[in-house]
Amino acid sequence: MIPRYSRPDMVAIWSPETKFRIWFEIEAHACDAMAEIGLIPHENAQAVWKAKDVEFDIARIDEIERVTKHDVIAFLTHLAEIVGSDEARFVHQGMTSSDVLDTAFNIQLTRAADLLLADMDALLEALKRRAHEHKMDICIGRSHGIHAEPTTMGLKFARFYAEMDRAKARLESARAEIATGAISGAVGTFANIAPQVEAHVCDKLGLTPEPISTQVIPRDRHAMFFATLGVVASSIENIAIEIRHLQRTEVLEAEEYFSPGQKGSSAMPHKRNPVLTENLTGLARLVRMAVTPALENVALWHERDISHSSVERMIGPDTTVTLDFALARLTQVIDKLVVYPDAMMDNLNRHRGLVHSQRILLALTQNGVSREDAYAMVQRNAMKVWEHGADFMAELKADPDVTKALTDAEIEDKIDLAYHTKHVDTLFHRVFGDTPSQD
Amino acid sequence: MIPRYSRPDMVAIWSPETKFRIWFEIEAHACDAMAEIGLIPHENAQAVWKAKDVEFDIARIDEIERVTKHDVIAFLTHLAEIVGSDEARFVHQGMTSSDVLDTAFNIQLTRAADLLLADMDALLEALKRRAHEHKMDICIGRSHGIHAEPTTMGLKFARFYAEMDRAKARLESARAEIATGAISGAVGTFANIAPQVEAHVCDKLGLTPEPISTQVIPRDRHAMFFATLGVVASSIENIAIEIRHLQRTEVLEAEEYFSPGQKGSSAMPHKRNPVLTENLTGLARLVRMAVTPALENVALWHERDISHSSVERMIGPDTTVTLDFALARLTQVIDKLVVYPDAMMDNLNRHRGLVHSQRILLALTQNGVSREDAYAMVQRNAMKVWEHGADFMAELKADPDVTKALTDAEIEDKIDLAYHTKHVDTLFHRVFGDTPSQD
Amino acid sequence: MIPRYSRPDMVAIWSPETKFRIWFEIEAHACDAMAEIGLIPHENAQAVWKAKDVEFDIARIDEIERVTKHDVIAFLTHLAEIVGSDEARFVHQGMTSSDVLDTAFNIQLTRAADLLLADMDALLEALKRRAHEHKMDICIGRSHGIHAEPTTMGLKFARFYAEMDRAKARLESARAEIATGAISGAVGTFANIAPQVEAHVCDKLGLTPEPISTQVIPRDRHAMFFATLGVVASSIENIAIEIRHLQRTEVLEAEEYFSPGQKGSSAMPHKRNPVLTENLTGLARLVRMAVTPALENVALWHERDISHSSVERMIGPDTTVTLDFALARLTQVIDKLVVYPDAMMDNLNRHRGLVHSQRILLALTQNGVSREDAYAMVQRNAMKVWEHGADFMAELKADPDVTKALTDAEIEDKIDLAYHTKHVDTLFHRVFGDTPSQD
Amino acid sequence: MIPRYSRPDMVAIWSPETKFRIWFEIEAHACDAMAEIGLIPHENAQAVWKAKDVEFDIARIDEIERVTKHDVIAFLTHLAEIVGSDEARFVHQGMTSSDVLDTAFNIQLTRAADLLLADMDALLEALKRRAHEHKMDICIGRSHGIHAEPTTMGLKFARFYAEMDRAKARLESARAEIATGAISGAVGTFANIAPQVEAHVCDKLGLTPEPISTQVIPRDRHAMFFATLGVVASSIENIAIEIRHLQRTEVLEAEEYFSPGQKGSSAMPHKRNPVLTENLTGLARLVRMAVTPALENVALWHERDISHSSVERMIGPDTTVTLDFALARLTQVIDKLVVYPDAMMDNLNRHRGLVHSQRILLALTQNGVSREDAYAMVQRNAMKVWEHGADFMAELKADPDVTKALTDAEIEDKIDLAYHTKHVDTLFHRVFGDTPSQD
Repeated sequence: MIPRYSRPDMVAIWSPETKFRIWFEIEAHACDAMAEIGLIPHENAQAVWKAKDVEFDIARIDEIERVTKHDVIAFLTHLAEIVGSDEARFVHQGMTSSDVLDTAFNIQLTRAADLLLADMDALLEALKRRAHEHKMDICIGRSHGIHAEPTTMGLKFARFYAEMDRAKARLESARAEIATGAISGAVGTFANIAPQVEAHVCDKLGLTPEPISTQVIPRDRHAMFFATLGVVASSIENIAIEIRHLQRTEVLEAEEYFSPGQKGSSAMPHKRNPVLTENLTGLARLVRMAVTPALENVALWHERDISHSSVERMIGPDTTVTLDFALARLTQVIDKLVVYPDAMMDNLNRHRGLVHSQRILLALTQNGVSREDAYAMVQRNAMKVWEHGADFMAELKADPDVTKALTDAEIEDKIDLAYHTKHVDTLFHRVFGDTPSQD
Repeated sequence: MIPRYSRPDMVAIWSPETKFRIWFEIEAHACDAMAEIGLIPHENAQAVWKAKDVEFDIARIDEIERVTKHDVIAFLTHLAEIVGSDEARFVHQGMTSSDVLDTAFNIQLTRAADLLLADMDALLEALKRRAHEHKMDICIGRSHGIHAEPTTMGLKFARFYAEMDRAKARLESARAEIATGAISGAVGTFANIAPQVEAHVCDKLGLTPEPISTQVIPRDRHAMFFATLGVVASSIENIAIEIRHLQRTEVLEAEEYFSPGQKGSSAMPHKRNPVLTENLTGLARLVRMAVTPALENVALWHERDISHSSVERMIGPDTTVTLDFALARLTQVIDKLVVYPDAMMDNLNRHRGLVHSQRILLALTQNGVSREDAYAMVQRNAMKVWEHGADFMAELKADPDVTKALTDAEIEDKIDLAYHTKHVDTLFHRVFGDTPSQD
Repeated sequence: MIPRYSRPDMVAIWSPETKFRIWFEIEAHACDAMAEIGLIPHENAQAVWKAKDVEFDIARIDEIERVTKHDVIAFLTHLAEIVGSDEARFVHQGMTSSDVLDTAFNIQLTRAADLLLADMDALLEALKRRAHEHKMDICIGRSHGIHAEPTTMGLKFARFYAEMDRAKARLESARAEIATGAISGAVGTFANIAPQVEAHVCDKLGLTPEPISTQVIPRDRHAMFFATLGVVASSIENIAIEIRHLQRTEVLEAEEYFSPGQKGSSAMPHKRNPVLTENLTGLARLVRMAVTPALENVALWHERDISHSSVERMIGPDTTVTLDFALARLTQVIDKLVVYPDAMMDNLNRHRGLVHSQRILLALTQNGVSREDAYAMVQRNAMKVWEHGADFMAELKADPDVTKALTDAEIEDKIDLAYHTKHVDTLFHRVFGDTPSQD
Repeated sequence: MIPRYSRPDMVAIWSPETKFRIWFEIEAHACDAMAEIGLIPHENAQAVWKAKDVEFDIARIDEIERVTKHDVIAFLTHLAEIVGSDEARFVHQGMTSSDVLDTAFNIQLTRAADLLLADMDALLEALKRRAHEHKMDICIGRSHGIHAEPTTMGLKFARFYAEMDRAKARLESARAEIATGAISGAVGTFANIAPQVEAHVCDKLGLTPEPISTQVIPRDRHAMFFATLGVVASSIENIAIEIRHLQRTEVLEAEEYFSPGQKGSSAMPHKRNPVLTENLTGLARLVRMAVTPALENVALWHERDISHSSVERMIGPDTTVTLDFALARLTQVIDKLVVYPDAMMDNLNRHRGLVHSQRILLALTQNGVSREDAYAMVQRNAMKVWEHGADFMAELKADPDVTKALTDAEIEDKIDLAYHTKHVDTLFHRVFGDTPSQD
């Protein structure tokens, strides 16, 4: 967790304060349930709630842990100091540390997922707005980094919207994967605790009881969670790369907003670098790197080993904090992105005519030329444009094989950018549910 | 794709024959749709179906590709050789290679997913059967590889069932992720093709039209697909590791079936090694290794680059073939696993009494001893068992602090294995929906 | 291993024929050594060499393996069929399967490394040639995709040469890592075999005896090997990305060679896509994906488990075959790359003057302007160029703050491209050892 | 960076204080060199050293960065506040931020590598001591988790020593990979700075000048560095897994030291869990997860993009801190590991006789029985031991086929553990260079 790539709400989820507060709630609710079914006296359950508004002394807990080398026991000892050691003697009864640790971790992850989902909503909103703003702003579409056919800047935003909408659905699934709790005892048999306790605690804390656990909640759930974050991060990278490309000096169809006072380069003051999206590219790598250890965490020995723990101590906070920051940063980039429609047209017209090559190809085959011959005709004229800067339309009109199949008027007719945008409405309808315009 | 880890049905999905057959169907259905909306003559569309039952000449296609260096053009050229170059001249009209390649790849992946889902059903069936068979067969539960409290062999199978049931749900989601097709032209604008063509092709081939594509179907879908396979593989590893542990010489609570004639070791003829589950551990690594490149494939340049292609040529077949084999192998292992209930009891009784330590701890606190004191009492007596092989119950009865809180009868009462299985029915009900037995 | 990304020499290393030939040599040399020290009769050792020129019947070996489920025993059985079962009865004596398998695998890996090293030499040669060819061809250097200061195309090639020269040194280390053999018996104690046998076999086969092995050669060696290949692959990607960028339509400073007859796009005949370097980007991901499973293979249980085996069956061939292909493809790309010096100058001059901004900044500070003020002066004039296409030098000359510190002549003096190439000789001397030219 | 898995010396390397101190030294040495060659006045160079013993005000630097959004400029501004803005005006002249950042990062990495190397020395020392302590303590060797043949506990330690000795050599190579510096300006051409400055700074700071850089030091170096740490981490995992296995309840041949007061389980007070080595298993995953992003960092755009930066901000500290902690923890585990030779012998004798099966097999073939027949004879008698707990030697003596080839005395002669340790001296000589003992 790096301060410069962190936002306070997500960081707070992972603070010791939050963690111990959740531990407390699990223990207190568990006591309530145990009292309810007659396992422990009601007064002991009630006594635990004395700590409800007490701030736990983290330094003290750490001090105890240095002796016991066991974090849950350290916490329980401190809790007993607050509640009274006699009153507290049924706390944690029949439970195992992981009942607390795993349930608490999943609560932290679900809260983190909620923040990420809210981030995603903001990002979707920004993408939707920019998509409509630039819906019909034509630019060249590129495959392999090479000019292909016209598209619109709005379609770029729209497809990123669609991708992030899928990302949101995936995040929701991922949240459901880890929204379970377990209070099932040392090996998951409820030997010393009743399933009702688990049910009560989960109900109070917004979780579903894990159908069958061991000492721990099964880690395939967490693997799925972190794998999903990795996919979301890759989609962030996808958008980031697009913007970095659009901001290249030679392309410059869009640019990250550059605030007054911001310095681009210590040596070249004019430079406006796409540093936010470059940064997002790196952050995506950081989120993704948690996927493999999360997968390696699944195969625990028998009813559990603790190899997963150190991994989760790091990737739990780091991955959610980084992804939260990245989503917010991306939203800000999208929101303020400076788009240059003139530059888009300049680039599109760079090889005037060439973007229409496929239409010519099509027109030739429709007028009876074989696909192979049509391809050869278009290619030889295209190459003259490419290599000597010739005018594509002029070359076509000067090629007798072409003019045998197409009149000059038919050739000229192909220069029509609206031809390429005629289905933009359809696509916006598909993505945003927009009612197609009535013209 | 390694023959020894491959099964024919999955391999067939990835054969050139299957691929070209799918390509053909895409092109032929697209022609039908184009004819239907008047873009090309009906007779040309019908003519394409001449190739319906013709076996494509793969060597010939390869030969053409060596010249054109373009696989789709090579195929189309060969198709024209069959259909007639004049009749075939509208084939692929307005389409781009990726319309064929991506739609075909997704068809292969959905078929692969269907096989994996069937594999999963067989595995679930085997796990369910073994779970019920050993439902009440008690064995020691272990955390950290150390004896903890009793559980049952049936619960082990039941939790693997629950994990694989989640895996199945994940596979179904993954299948849905990649069950889309796109016939949207060079940059996804439908400039030279109509959305109806896409709709028709997808409908005929069991896919959903991709709402918005570029030249390609967005790769976040594939990333999610392969990430999911990685999670499933990790669950396979989880079961494999359990069996490998149970088969250790010192544990030997279960053993892979060893067929007559099978040789365990070239030097030590008596050895029966858990080679199938060790192999599954390795296969899980192989399936997982595709996750990272699949994530790296998401961020393509602009409307596409082709860096993803070589990756998918390898991980598409390799990952699905390996996972299919692994699921089948695991099913066979589960199905035939030799379980040794006697050894399970022997191991459980190895430190007679110690497994009941938590019950004693609980009984002490319930009789008024503070948690801290109870812990100390149990620990000092447990240590005598651990270090000098003492009898736990005898030691407890000889400890005046303990006997102040518990009578001998109360201590003896704790030796009761049924105490640990009293909620097995509940767990089987949760996992399998079994009606709890009526006693 | 995908045929289209494979070259025959590397593929041959991984054929069953090669593998069994190596197994045979290990066994035969081992028999010689055992005879030499009196463990087995000389005539039995000599008899084994009867199989020296016999082609092994792979179908037969496979048939035996289907019964025994053990590949080394299947091979030994077949060998006995050739040599005579009585004569062959000392073959493999005191050895364990892994003595053969691991030593053979390392021989395959060292041979693979030798091919990769030869590939690397060819690549280095091509890079060196192109570096000198374009040593002084000026182009704009870019950071963040944004124009920075001038550099030369030759320096690009030179730095790739330096990077690949490091890659070569890493490959040599990686080769040394896995050039060991072990013939040490079931758990590495030489209980039933003598260290002299290991020494003899290793000596004959170009390996170093593994100082201490278990049943297997330790897998940290292989992890290091595959990790190194992953680093080399990333350097390939580095060069590939550079070329893909240079070939972008808007940049077009260099282009992959496009052979006559090659088709760029099925729909847009004029397109010349950087498909080879895009492909290399994907191949790099494939080579890299082996790193993680190779790392996971290190922690085998006790004196060995066999989880590594399936992983190595796949990544051994796949990774070396893919990297061999990638290196050869990259060499070809470099060798034939079409470089466009005119386009390089056009791009450099796109924002005439701006590339000299740092020199102006420097001149201002040298003439007594504070760094902060100088930065502000340069930035405000640079922004006019950036935003309104103004001429940088003209703007500077019109800025009274600037002219207070610099005369017009001093400003004009900064437009000098030679200023940026004055240390190219130094760099070529560092990279290639060239004697700096004497002018 | 998680406090519980961090040690202060390594943490200090990554503190802002250290970072700014290094930045200062780079700038100050660079000024000296510039003065030396006449680029700037000597008094300005000397003035910079006024900040030599001044503690930089990190809060102030952060404050400036919030405005400039540029960390190096923020630092330089603060430095000017200390040195005097006029005196400081030549600081950083002709340099680019990365000259400082990259050179400083490599200094941090080399210092980190030095700590890791010292850690490794301590680990090697511990392994060597324990190897000699248990050199001849016999235990069963295991393959596939199944008893194989005898080995010694000392050989286990010795092979871990050999593996860590390789790890040390790898770390030394990794250190050399990143011990370079670059002061070469905006695109690496030394346009505004002289190579002598780079040479002087590197010389003063213990680095080698990077032969050819761009704006940055090439990232293949860092990829190799982090990949190497990943391999080292896997070797740590290898040892950790061994100990975890040895500590299993059923095996218990060794145990992590359990300090008085330490609590094993909140519910089962007798449990002594191998939590340190389980933790090491997890830490290994954390170190390894940096490998992939480090590989992805290599392919920067043109003369640099900044995507690597956020990755390195995290993996630089996290990976070195975690590995440092892991090496120290492992050293402590090895140092204090409690070994149980009696338990080792008990386990070895569990299937009395079976461990000698290979010797019987060998003896049979040496007395003229074919390998196939010998294998069958041994296997059928071994199975009786395995399945019915029979005595292996007794069964052999009762098998007429066996006794036809071997006398009872010959059979009994095979029960000799010294047979398995006869080459331990050889192995210790190979690993430690010990002079073989003279008996």
